[in-house]
Amino acid sequence: MANMKNAKWVVKSHPEADLSEDNFDLIYDEVPEPDAGQVLIKTKTLVITPPLRMAVGSGGITGSVVPVGDMMRGTGQGEIIVSNHPDFSVGDVVSGAFGWQEYSISDGKKPFPIEKIEARAGQPLNTTMHIMGASGATAYIGFYDLAKPKPGDIVLVSAAAGTVGSIVCQLAKHSGCKVIGIAGNQVKCDFLVNELGIDGAINYKNSDVAEELKALCPKGIDIYFDNVGGEILDHALDIIRPRARVILCGATSQYEADGSWYGPKNYFNLVYREAIMQGFYIFNYRDRFPDAYRRLSDLINQGALKYNEDILDGIESVPSALVQVLSGENFGTQLVNVSQES
Amino acid sequence: MANMKNAKWVVKSHPEADLSEDNFDLIYDEVPEPDAGQVLIKTKTLVITPPLRMAVGSGGITGSVVPVGDMMRGTGQGEIIVSNHPDFSVGDVVSGAFGWQEYSISDGKKPFPIEKIEARAGQPLNTTMHIMGASGATAYIGFYDLAKPKPGDIVLVSAAAGTVGSIVCQLAKHSGCKVIGIAGNQVKCDFLVNELGIDGAINYKNSDVAEELKALCPKGIDIYFDNVGGEILDHALDIIRPRARVILCGATSQYEADGSWYGPKNYFNLVYREAIMQGFYIFNYRDRFPDAYRRLSDLINQGALKYNEDILDGIESVPSALVQVLSGENFGTQLVNVSQES
Repeated sequence: MANMKNAKWVVKSHPEADLSEDNFDLIYDEVPEPDAGQVLIKTKTLVITPPLRMAVGSGGITGSVVPVGDMMRGTGQGEIIVSNHPDFSVGDVVSGAFGWQEYSISDGKKPFPIEKIEARAGQPLNTTMHIMGASGATAYIGFYDLAKPKPGDIVLVSAAAGTVGSIVCQLAKHSGCKVIGIAGNQVKCDFLVNELGIDGAINYKNSDVAEELKALCPKGIDIYFDNVGGEILDHALDIIRPRARVILCGATSQYEADGSWYGPKNYFNLVYREAIMQGFYIFNYRDRFPDAYRRLSDLINQGALKYNEDILDGIESVPSALVQVLSGENFGTQLVNVSQES
Repeated sequence: MANMKNAKWVVKSHPEADLSEDNFDLIYDEVPEPDAGQVLIKTKTLVITPPLRMAVGSGGITGSVVPVGDMMRGTGQGEIIVSNHPDFSVGDVVSGAFGWQEYSISDGKKPFPIEKIEARAGQPLNTTMHIMGASGATAYIGFYDLAKPKPGDIVLVSAAAGTVGSIVCQLAKHSGCKVIGIAGNQVKCDFLVNELGIDGAINYKNSDVAEELKALCPKGIDIYFDNVGGEILDHALDIIRPRARVILCGATSQYEADGSWYGPKNYFNLVYREAIMQGFYIFNYRDRFPDAYRRLSDLINQGALKYNEDILDGIESVPSALVQVLSGENFGTQLVNVSQES
C-alpha cells in the first residue's frame, strides 16, 4: 500500500540460553497490496505464550524453528481493513497466525488460515484469546473430561496463576476439591490464596518445593495439572496417591531446553500408585467447546471465575512481552495491543 | 526339629553395581518346631524375578531393603509337612513369601500369609507361578483391559521373551496386531519370531534400538507394553502414534539403579500424540483373574499360547538364578526347584 509501512519483528539470532529482546530486530517494509481473493489484516492484539520460545529453539510444539532473518511467529486477532474476498468484510475481526507484524495478507487459508471471531457466550471479544478461547477450553476439558475430579480430591496445579492454571484452580475449588497452586512469585501466590480462594500456594523460586508439598499435601495428591514439567513434575509424581491423574498440559520449564528435556525420574510411581499420566490436543475436542464456553461464562457471571489480562502496548513491546512471560513476571494472559483503532 | 537342618541364604552385602552370588551367604540353622496354630512348610519351588534386585538395593517395588545378615526375600510354593492349623493339612501346597530357605513357619497370616494352591483351569500346578498366576493375569489384564488393542494396532513389547512379555506378544498376535519384540539375545529374538510368530524382534544388546524401531515400525506404535524402562522407554515414546497407550509393567533396566532412575525425556510426546501412560497394581483386578485364567488356558489348549520354564535345581542355585535373570540369560520364567519330594 502506498506510503504505509509495516513494522515487523524478525529473528536476529537464536538464543544460547535465556531469550532476550536482543534476539529480535524490528524492521519496516511496505504494507502489501491484497490481490483478488485476499484480505489485508491490521493486527489488533498478539497473544504471547511460553511455547513461542520453542520457535527460536528446539521447534517443539510450535512446529519448525523460525530461521534467522525470518519474521517471528505469533497469533492474535486482527481487523480486516481491505477485503477482496467474498467471505470477509472490512471491519470483521479474525484470528490467525499473523506473526509479529502490524499488517498481513491472507486468502482465508494461505499463507495462514483466518477465522471470523465473535464474542462468545456474552463475554468481551478479547476473552476469546484466553478464557473464552483455547486456554479456557484446555482448562475446562483437561480438568473435567480428563482429570475427572471428585469432591474432596486434592488437586495440585503448576503455573497456577497462568491463563490455564488459574482457571483450573477455580474450577477445582468450584468442584469441592482441595487446591494447592505453584507459582513463581509472592504476588501470584497471594493472589491465588486471597483472590481465587485456593487452599495453599508455593512460591517455587524461594522455597523447597518438595518440603512445601509434604507440608501442604501430607496425604498426597489425586490430580496434578502440569503446566511446567521438569523437577516440579517429579516432585508431584513423588506424592501421587493411588489412581491419581497427571494431566500434561504444558512444560514451560523445558521450553528453553534445546533438545534434551528433563525426564521425570519418578514416573514409575505411576505403577506403584496405579496412576495415569496423559496429554491431550485440545483441538480434537472441538465438539466440547460450546459447552465449555457456556459454563465458563456462567461462572464468570456468577462471580465464581476471575481472569487477568496483562497488556503491553505497541508493536515495539512484543519481544519484551515474551521475555516477561518466560521469566514469569507477567500476571495473567499476556497480550500486546498492537493497534486498537482500525 | 531335631536333627533337621534348614539351609538359607542371607544377604552378605549390598551390591555396589551388578549383583553377584558373592552378595549372599548360605548358612544352616535348625528347622523350627511349629507351635499350636502354626504349620511347617517345605519349600518346593522359588520364583526368581528381576524386582528382587531391589530388595538389596533401593527397596523399590519390593518394599523395604533386606539388611545385611538377614535372610533374602523370595516367594514360591511349598508343601505343608507339619500342621497344627485347622485350615491346612499335611500335603497341601501353598504359596507364600517363604524367603530363600528350605523350611519356614507360618500361622497362615504371620510372619507371612500363605494361600492354598490348586491347579487352575486344568493346567499344571507349576503354571500357577507364572502363566496361570499373577504374571499371566498381568499380561492378560494389562493388555486387554488397559492397552485396549484393536486389530491392526502396532504393538511393541520389551523383555518380550520374559514371562509377561511373551504372553503379551502372543495375545497381541491373537488379536490381529502387528507385534515387535525387544529382547536381550539372538536366541530369544529367533524364538519370538519363529516360535511365537511375532512380526519382528530387536536384540537391544547388539543393535541401535532407535534405528531398528524406525525400520520395523515406520508408522510408529499404538501400544507399548514396557517391562524395562530406561532408554528403551524413551525410544518407544519417540514413536508413539496419536492416542497411543503406554502400559508400564516393569522397569528391569532400573532395578539395579539405587535411587536415581532414568526419567523418560520424551514423556511430552504424550501431549503431542494425546497418549496415555499408565501403571497398574494387578491385585486390584482380582475379580478379573478367573476370566483371565480360563481364557489363557483355552489358548494354551488350542496351541495358540506357549510358555517356557527355566529351572535350576537345589537351594544352592538360588543366587545364581537371580544373577542369570538380571543379566537376561534365563529363557522363560526362572524357577528353582528347591525340593520336589515332600
